[in-house]
Amino acid sequence: MDKKIVLGIIGAGRIGKLHAENVINNFVDVKVKAIADVYADNIKDWAANLGIENVYSDYHDILNDSEINTVLICSSTNTHSPISIEAANAGKHIFCEKPIDYDLDRIAAALDAVKKAGVKYQVGFNRRFDHNFSKVREYVKEGKIGDPHIIKVTSRDPEPPSAEYARVSGGMFLDMTIHDFDMVRYLSGSEVTEVYTNAAVLVDPAIGEAGDVDTALITLKFKNGAIGIIDNSRRAAYGYDQRVEVFGSKGGVTVSNDAPTSAVLSTAEGVFSDKPKYFFLERYKDSFVEELKQFFDAIKNDTPTPVEGIDGLKPVIIAIAAKKSYEEGRPVRIEE
Amino acid sequence: MDKKIVLGIIGAGRIGKLHAENVINNFVDVKVKAIADVYADNIKDWAANLGIENVYSDYHDILNDSEINTVLICSSTNTHSPISIEAANAGKHIFCEKPIDYDLDRIAAALDAVKKAGVKYQVGFNRRFDHNFSKVREYVKEGKIGDPHIIKVTSRDPEPPSAEYARVSGGMFLDMTIHDFDMVRYLSGSEVTEVYTNAAVLVDPAIGEAGDVDTALITLKFKNGAIGIIDNSRRAAYGYDQRVEVFGSKGGVTVSNDAPTSAVLSTAEGVFSDKPKYFFLERYKDSFVEELKQFFDAIKNDTPTPVEGIDGLKPVIIAIAAKKSYEEGRPVRIEE
Amino acid sequence: MDKKIVLGIIGAGRIGKLHAENVINNFVDVKVKAIADVYADNIKDWAANLGIENVYSDYHDILNDSEINTVLICSSTNTHSPISIEAANAGKHIFCEKPIDYDLDRIAAALDAVKKAGVKYQVGFNRRFDHNFSKVREYVKEGKIGDPHIIKVTSRDPEPPSAEYARVSGGMFLDMTIHDFDMVRYLSGSEVTEVYTNAAVLVDPAIGEAGDVDTALITLKFKNGAIGIIDNSRRAAYGYDQRVEVFGSKGGVTVSNDAPTSAVLSTAEGVFSDKPKYFFLERYKDSFVEELKQFFDAIKNDTPTPVEGIDGLKPVIIAIAAKKSYEEGRPVRIEE
Amino acid sequence: MDKKIVLGIIGAGRIGKLHAENVINNFVDVKVKAIADVYADNIKDWAANLGIENVYSDYHDILNDSEINTVLICSSTNTHSPISIEAANAGKHIFCEKPIDYDLDRIAAALDAVKKAGVKYQVGFNRRFDHNFSKVREYVKEGKIGDPHIIKVTSRDPEPPSAEYARVSGGMFLDMTIHDFDMVRYLSGSEVTEVYTNAAVLVDPAIGEAGDVDTALITLKFKNGAIGIIDNSRRAAYGYDQRVEVFGSKGGVTVSNDAPTSAVLSTAEGVFSDKPKYFFLERYKDSFVEELKQFFDAIKNDTPTPVEGIDGLKPVIIAIAAKKSYEEGRPVRIEE
Repeated sequence: MDKKIVLGIIGAGRIGKLHAENVINNFVDVKVKAIADVYADNIKDWAANLGIENVYSDYHDILNDSEINTVLICSSTNTHSPISIEAANAGKHIFCEKPIDYDLDRIAAALDAVKKAGVKYQVGFNRRFDHNFSKVREYVKEGKIGDPHIIKVTSRDPEPPSAEYARVSGGMFLDMTIHDFDMVRYLSGSEVTEVYTNAAVLVDPAIGEAGDVDTALITLKFKNGAIGIIDNSRRAAYGYDQRVEVFGSKGGVTVSNDAPTSAVLSTAEGVFSDKPKYFFLERYKDSFVEELKQFFDAIKNDTPTPVEGIDGLKPVIIAIAAKKSYEEGRPVRIEE
Repeated sequence: MDKKIVLGIIGAGRIGKLHAENVINNFVDVKVKAIADVYADNIKDWAANLGIENVYSDYHDILNDSEINTVLICSSTNTHSPISIEAANAGKHIFCEKPIDYDLDRIAAALDAVKKAGVKYQVGFNRRFDHNFSKVREYVKEGKIGDPHIIKVTSRDPEPPSAEYARVSGGMFLDMTIHDFDMVRYLSGSEVTEVYTNAAVLVDPAIGEAGDVDTALITLKFKNGAIGIIDNSRRAAYGYDQRVEVFGSKGGVTVSNDAPTSAVLSTAEGVFSDKPKYFFLERYKDSFVEELKQFFDAIKNDTPTPVEGIDGLKPVIIAIAAKKSYEEGRPVRIEE
Repeated sequence: MDKKIVLGIIGAGRIGKLHAENVINNFVDVKVKAIADVYADNIKDWAANLGIENVYSDYHDILNDSEINTVLICSSTNTHSPISIEAANAGKHIFCEKPIDYDLDRIAAALDAVKKAGVKYQVGFNRRFDHNFSKVREYVKEGKIGDPHIIKVTSRDPEPPSAEYARVSGGMFLDMTIHDFDMVRYLSGSEVTEVYTNAAVLVDPAIGEAGDVDTALITLKFKNGAIGIIDNSRRAAYGYDQRVEVFGSKGGVTVSNDAPTSAVLSTAEGVFSDKPKYFFLERYKDSFVEELKQFFDAIKNDTPTPVEGIDGLKPVIIAIAAKKSYEEGRPVRIEE
Repeated sequence: MDKKIVLGIIGAGRIGKLHAENVINNFVDVKVKAIADVYADNIKDWAANLGIENVYSDYHDILNDSEINTVLICSSTNTHSPISIEAANAGKHIFCEKPIDYDLDRIAAALDAVKKAGVKYQVGFNRRFDHNFSKVREYVKEGKIGDPHIIKVTSRDPEPPSAEYARVSGGMFLDMTIHDFDMVRYLSGSEVTEVYTNAAVLVDPAIGEAGDVDTALITLKFKNGAIGIIDNSRRAAYGYDQRVEVFGSKGGVTVSNDAPTSAVLSTAEGVFSDKPKYFFLERYKDSFVEELKQFFDAIKNDTPTPVEGIDGLKPVIIAIAAKKSYEEGRPVRIEE
């Protein structure tokens, strides 16, 4: 693309604001022309401070601006797929927060529109751009561990959501584990063919009453013959726990949690070190910048984005299968 | 017991010899009076060197010696249960190598004989006495991690057995994973109620042709509500991989592999450290001494042994269920 | 200060540019109004891209701008003290890169001017603001390790400077170890009273021919009774090595190097992990932002800066003593 | 030597008993024929239990026994050199606990007697046989770190001795640091040519009143150009601290402390791991067996012992120089 990237951001909640600040602070050659939010008044000062000139309450003002060639969709989940369609139809390149939708047909419709429009589409699975996880992928890709045999993901949140949120979020598999379903595809370089879910309500009974689970072990089979396991908890008392391991014919690679400091204090009472970084915004800070960098690069060089539409669809399919497996107490096959 | 412990050792293969040397080098108040092996000639020099006076080819010579009050059964697996019965009938305290048997009825018969005779019985699950794993159990027991939610065991061998051995050994679950089934019972302090096995042949096709698997993920449900996962491989290129993690309501505890040294070499090429201790005899060296110490203490103080008959039975039940789960592709319930 | 901070940056070499970008990307309420560099033409495009309106070749244009109330002095070392004096006389708050000067009288003159003008003055010892080292200081200050007994600093560069640079830079102690002299004062919370230097030329003979050393062990005595050791090398083959340890009556605290990732690769060849972050700009990235944050806070709240004039003076005094100790082969006292 | 090694042990304090048990439990082809201690009555039961037939109160009974061809000298320090002379004159191979003597002339006399008698002589610097330190030496010897530039030893005891002991032990440098002086020779593969001591009394004023120090930094120069630093404390609150680092032209190698277990407990309060092994007998357990193994091998194969007389002499020379440096406040040269 010869033209400069001119950006419109749709949705100015926590993640929309984060992206806006990341673009402005890191990409001097990308212009954030406008931001839209239904509560436009609330963000006017923030936007002015950042030098964003246009604040709209209706995102159509962004779609209708012909100078804007790229949009970031950061609005509420249920709007991701319809806005994706509208933006594609308006010829904009699209970065869409995960998940595209909870409904497979609606995802298909969105991806169809994108395909027809020929625009770039990237889904916001930021963890692929994390320094630790991308290094694991690199080792796997280079063949350092040989053929992958066992993929392991530990993914535990520091605090459970409210039961109210659990009720409306689509459940743990679609809301939280979806990142891990993306991660196992990324790390294994293969597709999931079967899921078995062993889950429980151990953190908060109210989550169970809302029809959801808060603790799970999900075993997976992959097309390349590997097997995998994801372990989830909605609450790790010590903070955000994000580790992976890929084991294969020539060896294995592991990554551990990032801590704020490497300080180790040794006293008569014992040896103490820092807890992991507590919050996802702190832990994955740099990955949010890196995913945008690679998105902008894909636009500029007219190359595929690193997380395409199919990568937005597959984790939702796996999540739905994981839920079904839990409900029916049996392994569930995933058709290709 | 007021009397001194006088020991007869039945079977002088690798493990029988190891126990003999450990007793002689560590327990001055325990006398090894005799050792029996079908190939008695082969061990005469070794026994003489150690100061063991009597070497028999028929273990009945040990059972018939009324001065001998305690036996270690280290003979081939298929003889464990019948010799247990004979030894119990002869009124000897018994330390029996794992597994007691592959057949549940034969195990029941052995445990029945032990119960009737009122002798001590300990099964050789030595890993419970490992410094790392016993520390994890201690933390769990003290409530340091709160209620257990997720139990994780990684157990990978450095080298696969021959396909021939795979054919006669009862399969990976009964031969190798049985230690891990014991470990999850030990760490969780609870019983397994359901098993689902996700397994594959990825290391050696010959193992598959022999009807066995070499790579597995086994998910478990426990009576206390916890869930668990064992991951196995018959071949870790970097050596013997033995790690566990228990995660609960108040936190988690992990142990990593022991290495020969803590040396870290940093050069322009990278940062290098030692591979884990390669072989189980090296890795679990001290645990073999500790299990005997606690066995002898149980005899002397007339207290329960730390790994009783039921602890020998339960892992076999779980292993059989794991095999069935793999064969039928579904979770299998374990009745209490 | 009620007024907004309006900044002029003097010197647009590597560090001047870094500070400019850090201010613009992190402090929305601080305005970078102008930047001056003798090669002004070279930086015009860069400055325009960042939105800096004024680019001067003569820094007096900054000092003469009454709207500018704060300057960052990032010019060549020999200009630090004279420009500090001019800026103080012009009533600007001053952030000055280290060292203030190599000449104690010139430093005294600069600090005198600052004192008379009553402006804020902060010296660019950025390592104090590093997450690891500031945590160590925090533990020491809180009394977690009791009274400090032994202070240890390991500080090794990835690559030696050219012999030419070694000739003009004032030597290793004034150029490189000066950061460590600052660090031991910071960590110990005390003043150095005696120095003994054990140094050698082991990395590059040309450095020795230029009259400098490239490897050193410097032992220190502190006013509070503690003793300390700095070890330096101009070349660590594995990269930038920056570790500290403080040991005291109640225990000790250590920090290790930061690595790009936590990935650990285990294969038949061994266990491999990442080398430390290689370059100081990468390793100390966040500390450069944090030192400015605390400088701006000191201005806004009219509180002392965290690295005052005396903190710029003392390390130079110690460096000169270290050099003398090396030359005379004996411990050298430092008068208060 | 064709004959079997027949051993007499002189002195049955803590270390003499340890060696006796190690020989009996680990070397079936070595016979412990007799043990001598001035308080022979106190050890009779212990010796009987171990199967040692002869217990003498006069060590001459050992020297006069012509069947005994090897002695371990474990008596009090002041008797090491005279008994070495007597044992050499009696034609016995000698393993002598460190130090040989505090007096250089008496050491020379002992080594002279050994030389004339042509017997094997090994000094009990057991740390050379530690798994960690011997690995470091191996890396250095293989050239993995290139030419050694900086040798670092951290050696801190868990508890200070009584002031009374400090008064009679020859002082910290001869009693404690002597192990570290041996270690730097071993690791560097070179000789110390200059010492500078920076020491203090920070742990216990009574130690100072007894004329000794309890905290020290000792810098060293080596014949091969390397420089070194030993840091000592008589009291590390967290236990026994034994680490080394060798840094060179191609990289560096470090070893850290051994801990009882690898358990890491993570809770809301923080991340906790084990303190180092607390006591030297626990920490260096295996090294005491290994040093005897290599001593017996040297006898059997008629090869040089791994720690010869000169290795017993040199650390005493360095210790005396370190003391002098502290007393005179200046670096002290060591003549070859």
